[in-house]
Amino acid sequence: MWETALETEPMRAVLERAGSYEQRIMRLFGIPESEIARSLREIEADGVPIETLEITTCLRRGEIEIATVFEPPYADVYDAFRDAIRARHADTLYSEDGSTIDDQVIAALAGHTVAVAESCTGGLMSARLTERGGSSDYFLGGAVVYSNEAKTALAGVPADLIAAHGAVSPEVAATLADGARERFGARIGIGITGIAGPDGGTDEKPVGTVCVSVAGPDGERWDRSVLLPGDRATIRERTTTVVMHGLRRRLREAEAVRRA
Amino acid sequence: MWETALETEPMRAVLERAGSYEQRIMRLFGIPESEIARSLREIEADGVPIETLEITTCLRRGEIEIATVFEPPYADVYDAFRDAIRARHADTLYSEDGSTIDDQVIAALAGHTVAVAESCTGGLMSARLTERGGSSDYFLGGAVVYSNEAKTALAGVPADLIAAHGAVSPEVAATLADGARERFGARIGIGITGIAGPDGGTDEKPVGTVCVSVAGPDGERWDRSVLLPGDRATIRERTTTVVMHGLRRRLREAEAVRRA
Repeated sequence: MWETALETEPMRAVLERAGSYEQRIMRLFGIPESEIARSLREIEADGVPIETLEITTCLRRGEIEIATVFEPPYADVYDAFRDAIRARHADTLYSEDGSTIDDQVIAALAGHTVAVAESCTGGLMSARLTERGGSSDYFLGGAVVYSNEAKTALAGVPADLIAAHGAVSPEVAATLADGARERFGARIGIGITGIAGPDGGTDEKPVGTVCVSVAGPDGERWDRSVLLPGDRATIRERTTTVVMHGLRRRLREAEAVRRA
Repeated sequence: MWETALETEPMRAVLERAGSYEQRIMRLFGIPESEIARSLREIEADGVPIETLEITTCLRRGEIEIATVFEPPYADVYDAFRDAIRARHADTLYSEDGSTIDDQVIAALAGHTVAVAESCTGGLMSARLTERGGSSDYFLGGAVVYSNEAKTALAGVPADLIAAHGAVSPEVAATLADGARERFGARIGIGITGIAGPDGGTDEKPVGTVCVSVAGPDGERWDRSVLLPGDRATIRERTTTVVMHGLRRRLREAEAVRRA
C-alpha cells in the first residue's frame, strides 16, 4: 500500500520537488554572530529577495556556518546573496563550498611538512593535525612543552626569554614555532602558549590569553595574540581553530608567492 | 493548581520515595559486555534477589559501567550484588564508588611527575593528562613522535632498534617510555606506538595493533601489546584508555611498595 501511494501523481510531484532542493554552505571565522544577523537584514533591505531562501546561521566551534536551502529557480537569488556576503565579509569568509577549515588546511599541506610546539593546548593541536589517515605525509611531530624546562629543552626557548617576557607571550610563541621547525626538520612550525585556566590568570594576562605563531621556511610568519572566552576545554579547542586559520593563511600566501 | 497538587498527601509520599532512591556505579575495564550479562544471570541463580535492584550495564569508551538504582531497604541486596561482582571480576573491577579512571589516575599522580612519548595517538595522551586544571602539577610534557626521525631525535629511540623490531613493537614502546622520562626529567614515562589506520596495517601487524609502556623510576614497568577494534578515532581514544589503566596499576603498585 505504501509503495502504491508513492507512485501516485501528487506524491511523485512532491518527491521530485523535495529531491531537487539545493543546499549551500558558507563558513566564516573571526566574526560575531550578531554581525551576520545585521548583514542579513541589510542585504534584504538592499533588495535581494532572500525570503525565497531558507537561511540558517549557526555558531559552531568558534565559527559561523551559513546553511542555505533553496529551490533551483532561486539559484540567482542565492548567488546574489553569496556575493553580498562575500563583499561584506571578504576578510572572514573562508569557505563557499562547504569545506571545513580542516579540509582546506590538509589539502593545502600537500607537499609541505609541519611540526608543533604547544603548551596550553596540551597535545590537541598535534591531535587535530593527525586526526585523519595519511597525516604522516605532512605531520612530522610535536612537542607538548608544559613546564618551562620542557620549553627550553625540547623547543629551544631560551630561559632568559621566558624570564623577560613570561611563558605566555608573543616572543615565546614565535620561538616555539621556530623551535618546532628546527627540532623536527619541518617546513612549517607552529608555536602555542596560553592560559587555559581555570587558574593561572593575572590582571595583565587573564585566563583565555593565548599567543600563537606559524613560522615558514623563509623567516615569514603569522602571529596572533587573542583573548578567548569560555572554559578550559573551550579555550583549548578554540586555540587549535585559531591556529588552523593561521596555517591556512600562511599556506595560501606561500602558494601565492610560489605562483607569482 | 500544580503547586496545590504537589502538596497533597499521596503526591508527597511519591516525591519522598523518589527522592530517597540510591544510585551506585561500578566500573570495569578489559572485560566483554557479554561476560557481565552472564554474571548477572548466575548471581541471580545463586539466590541474590537482584530483581529488587534496577541494574543497567553500559559499554562506554571501552569500559563497562554498571549503574544500579535501588530503594534504601534493598541496600543489603546491593551489597551482596557488589560483593558477587567483586568476587567474580576482581581483576577488571576498578571502581566501586563511581570514580572514573581519570579521577583515579589524577588523584594517584599527586606527588609524581609524568611525561609522554606517543606516536599513533598523535597528542591525545598528553591532551587527556592535561584535560583538567592544575595538571601542570604532575604533567611535565610530551613528545608526539610521528616520524621515525622524531622518535630518535626527541625520545632517544636508536634507529637500529626501529630497524630491528619495527616502529610498532614492544621494544620501541619501552624505549619511548624511558626516553620520555629522561628527556622531561619525569618520574614516570609513557611510551605509545601503534597503527591507527586506516592504512599502514600488515598481516603481522594489522590496523589496531598498539604497544604501550609505562616506566617508573626504578626500572619497573608495565607493558602491553593489544589489538584494538574500531576506526581510527576509536583506536586512538581506546589507546589512551589502555594507558590510563596501566598508569593506575603502576601507581598503585608503587604506592603498595612505598607502604610496605
